[in-house]
Amino acid sequence: MARIGFIGLGNMGTPMAGNLVKKGHEVHGCDLVKANLDAAAARGVKAAASAAEAAKGADVVVTMLPAGKDTIAVYDKAGVLQAAAKGTVFIDSSTIDVASARRAHELAKGAGMLSLDAPVSGGVGGAEAASLTFMVGGAKEAFDKAKPVLEAMGKKVVHCGDAGAGQAAKICNNMILGISMIGVCEAFVLAEKLGLSHQALFDVASTSSGQCWSITSYCPVPGPVPTSPANNSYKAGFASALMLKDLKLAQEAAAAAGATTPMGAAAAQLYGLHNAWGEGGTDFSGIIHLIRGKGAK
Amino acid sequence: MARIGFIGLGNMGTPMAGNLVKKGHEVHGCDLVKANLDAAAARGVKAAASAAEAAKGADVVVTMLPAGKDTIAVYDKAGVLQAAAKGTVFIDSSTIDVASARRAHELAKGAGMLSLDAPVSGGVGGAEAASLTFMVGGAKEAFDKAKPVLEAMGKKVVHCGDAGAGQAAKICNNMILGISMIGVCEAFVLAEKLGLSHQALFDVASTSSGQCWSITSYCPVPGPVPTSPANNSYKAGFASALMLKDLKLAQEAAAAAGATTPMGAAAAQLYGLHNAWGEGGTDFSGIIHLIRGKGAK
Amino acid sequence: MARIGFIGLGNMGTPMAGNLVKKGHEVHGCDLVKANLDAAAARGVKAAASAAEAAKGADVVVTMLPAGKDTIAVYDKAGVLQAAAKGTVFIDSSTIDVASARRAHELAKGAGMLSLDAPVSGGVGGAEAASLTFMVGGAKEAFDKAKPVLEAMGKKVVHCGDAGAGQAAKICNNMILGISMIGVCEAFVLAEKLGLSHQALFDVASTSSGQCWSITSYCPVPGPVPTSPANNSYKAGFASALMLKDLKLAQEAAAAAGATTPMGAAAAQLYGLHNAWGEGGTDFSGIIHLIRGKGAK
Amino acid sequence: MARIGFIGLGNMGTPMAGNLVKKGHEVHGCDLVKANLDAAAARGVKAAASAAEAAKGADVVVTMLPAGKDTIAVYDKAGVLQAAAKGTVFIDSSTIDVASARRAHELAKGAGMLSLDAPVSGGVGGAEAASLTFMVGGAKEAFDKAKPVLEAMGKKVVHCGDAGAGQAAKICNNMILGISMIGVCEAFVLAEKLGLSHQALFDVASTSSGQCWSITSYCPVPGPVPTSPANNSYKAGFASALMLKDLKLAQEAAAAAGATTPMGAAAAQLYGLHNAWGEGGTDFSGIIHLIRGKGAK
Repeated sequence: MARIGFIGLGNMGTPMAGNLVKKGHEVHGCDLVKANLDAAAARGVKAAASAAEAAKGADVVVTMLPAGKDTIAVYDKAGVLQAAAKGTVFIDSSTIDVASARRAHELAKGAGMLSLDAPVSGGVGGAEAASLTFMVGGAKEAFDKAKPVLEAMGKKVVHCGDAGAGQAAKICNNMILGISMIGVCEAFVLAEKLGLSHQALFDVASTSSGQCWSITSYCPVPGPVPTSPANNSYKAGFASALMLKDLKLAQEAAAAAGATTPMGAAAAQLYGLHNAWGEGGTDFSGIIHLIRGKGAK
Repeated sequence: MARIGFIGLGNMGTPMAGNLVKKGHEVHGCDLVKANLDAAAARGVKAAASAAEAAKGADVVVTMLPAGKDTIAVYDKAGVLQAAAKGTVFIDSSTIDVASARRAHELAKGAGMLSLDAPVSGGVGGAEAASLTFMVGGAKEAFDKAKPVLEAMGKKVVHCGDAGAGQAAKICNNMILGISMIGVCEAFVLAEKLGLSHQALFDVASTSSGQCWSITSYCPVPGPVPTSPANNSYKAGFASALMLKDLKLAQEAAAAAGATTPMGAAAAQLYGLHNAWGEGGTDFSGIIHLIRGKGAK
Repeated sequence: MARIGFIGLGNMGTPMAGNLVKKGHEVHGCDLVKANLDAAAARGVKAAASAAEAAKGADVVVTMLPAGKDTIAVYDKAGVLQAAAKGTVFIDSSTIDVASARRAHELAKGAGMLSLDAPVSGGVGGAEAASLTFMVGGAKEAFDKAKPVLEAMGKKVVHCGDAGAGQAAKICNNMILGISMIGVCEAFVLAEKLGLSHQALFDVASTSSGQCWSITSYCPVPGPVPTSPANNSYKAGFASALMLKDLKLAQEAAAAAGATTPMGAAAAQLYGLHNAWGEGGTDFSGIIHLIRGKGAK
Repeated sequence: MARIGFIGLGNMGTPMAGNLVKKGHEVHGCDLVKANLDAAAARGVKAAASAAEAAKGADVVVTMLPAGKDTIAVYDKAGVLQAAAKGTVFIDSSTIDVASARRAHELAKGAGMLSLDAPVSGGVGGAEAASLTFMVGGAKEAFDKAKPVLEAMGKKVVHCGDAGAGQAAKICNNMILGISMIGVCEAFVLAEKLGLSHQALFDVASTSSGQCWSITSYCPVPGPVPTSPANNSYKAGFASALMLKDLKLAQEAAAAAGATTPMGAAAAQLYGLHNAWGEGGTDFSGIIHLIRGKGAK
């Protein structure tokens, strides 16, 4: 079993760290919010006084933070790279911009560490159930060492390529997701106007060339897929604000890399409108209300 | 076994009529082009001198024509509704605008006929293999009578609702398809610019929330899905010009019905650009070249 | 002075007909709504019992109707082309689709008449003040005969080309207008978020390469241009619903003619959302509220 | 007369510095490229050995650099803020992102300097003719001191607000410009397909509600406006690559500030396609070829 430093014990970090404890690892956690530390302690995570303290003596250090600047701040200014032994594996599971992810790798490498970017999909539910998917970028050596730790928190661990490839895979995947979700919402709204029932469109599209995860696993109208948030008043699930964040990361990466993504840009704008109308907290499938135009709820 | 009039023996109509013959039906076919009639005759279709002649004595009359105005012309001016006995089932398998489809139902009803709109998906390959999907709109009575005939030409027959519901289902499905295909192409191009391999993106997205038919069954880059047109120089398959036609039908229906479909509209414009650049004959997954920007091929 | 038949005495038609009377013409008007006839009578328009009655003995017949199907119905089924003498000039001032406009020309020509499509800009204010702009399509002979009559109702009369060219010019102009208005709204909203004052952006853009009618004559924020509807609670002016109508006509024409207009399509969708949110009656500059996202007002 | 340090003597910087010399100022210039220094010397600019050298003893220091990171590098690492006397006015005329512009102000303030962001419009022609427009952000005191210097290089100097307001004004203006140019191109292409002549559309739109700088001063089809690049094989003028740069700056600012700009995003994507097809060096009005679809030239 490994000794693991875990920095960032929010909604995602706490259950992830808890799953590491369950599998027998010794986890030293750190968070700026006292309540988060307490919640993690209730799952067996030992409270560290600082990020550097959590990193000291660790085999693996996991960060789970809100944005690229947070990861960079922890790597660059919190002393973690100085506190850990050379060759420690640093895993950043935050969803951040590709440029910051690459900068984090550079910082880790400069300090003699191994490193991975390893953003997840699956949300809080997946974190609790240890069923997350990890999309991982970094060297093979780092990946091989980290794999057992990641498998303790998720059920699928994909090595996507070198530094930044995990973040790249996540934003590319989520860009498809955001685009296809709006497309599915538009199709249901058009169907409504044409007198075609939700169920009939579902029956055709879910078994035909319009099939996509957004309709078959996360259908944005109540009825056809009982587990989808549409049946639960569009309670997130995956909040519209988080989809907007990911679409903006994709646009940022596309602008920096010189890629043209017209549908991705349009999706980012439509989720921008959805958020500007105060719907950032609802599930991202709730964008059907923007398309349908009946009001904010 | 039934006697069937078949009007429109093009690339789709001829193999469809041929499959009816194979199942033991007596098919009287009609087409303006002599070569088409000959090709159908080689499959056992009897040549009728006119559309009215084909309809005379038929239990079922199938039309397979390019556009709404063609269906209306045949129903309104070719004498078919006068030639057939009351209660004959008229099936229009053309992909046409919803308004014309409804007008065709009215004309048939006015003449005492039963009628269905029943556009297909599956293309020429599906027509040859009798594996088409039929999306059907019209009364239950008509559907029940037509079902055995449709099953002789396809492997899936879905009753979508009343008059026009078949056309509505097809354009809603294909609008999702056009949107998601461009989304997938954009994701691959973004991945290229970020140094993420095609296979890595495929591995993540095909098993995650970005999963859609456009990536798992019709992947627009060579490699991951051997049967996709990308492995065959983007030879159609489903031509970009046909995708543009369907997206324009969707926009036409949305404008008439008052539905807002921003991603559907954007997809129609992008396929418009693709066609304007001379790529209408290539497979619709070839729009990745427009997005990538390296040249027309 | 001429004898003029005037068919369609709504908000636009009544003041237009009244201006013809003022200039000394004899006007015989017709409308399906009794109150409209009465309002026109108060301006000196003689009530005709039918459209055909209005056309009988006329030198010029003007139609001012809601949609293409209305113009076609009057030309094709109301007997006006039979009631008028050969060579009478038929002027359709309705804003309609290009295809219907051309069909109306064909009907008139088939009956031995001269004809023009002559949609207007300037709204109800321009109709009252006889300051409308007429964009005119049709033969030179018809234009020369009609010009004095049009000049009695407007201050600018432009011969744009052959049959349909008037409608084409209007939708092309209004497509630019709809696009640039949204662009200006987005720039003001971005300026707000960046801490740049409305006045500062106005001062720069109104005298620089961002200059356009939407900012200099119809500024969508209160302040810089005192006469703009933004200073009057966004009371139309030119209603959002009418802008949506014109943008849809442009999209319809583009789809039929095979033109690609991505920004025009996007503008049509955004005005579609604006109308779907119940704002069709406000001025079209009110779309700034959709972009800003603070609520419907 | 003032002593002026001028850092960045490219296509824009050299004629700007030359105009300062013409008005009697003593200009000490600096550039990494020897040929640029020589060209500036030919206009009377004294060559400084380094940026710090140029700043030493200066009353005003002007920077004219490609991107935000360059301005920050000069301010932060080239020693200019240490070399100049307290209270020197630092003017950054580069077109850069708003965040970097604000960071530059902070750095200058931290060193006891006055500072302005002052991007220009007018291009190389305006730089040569001393007819640039300066959009200026920063404190009133700095603006008042810098005004005479700016007026030596341009004919219009607008104080837009506090730190960053100059950059904000420029990107807001140019976002309107990029949007309206594409809108005008789409209108001309639609007119072509509808048989409406370029001149007829110009005559209507240039005097009506579709009027905008993109049509009246920079018309994207040859003919109506003799001075527009369309009459000179679309030779820039204002290159498509620079329009793309500005639209990306606008998107970057909008994303950071939380503004939604759907048409601005769409314009950025279309210029992205235009550049991806190899047309970055042509005038930005040449995007009409992308819209028309006839080929790359």
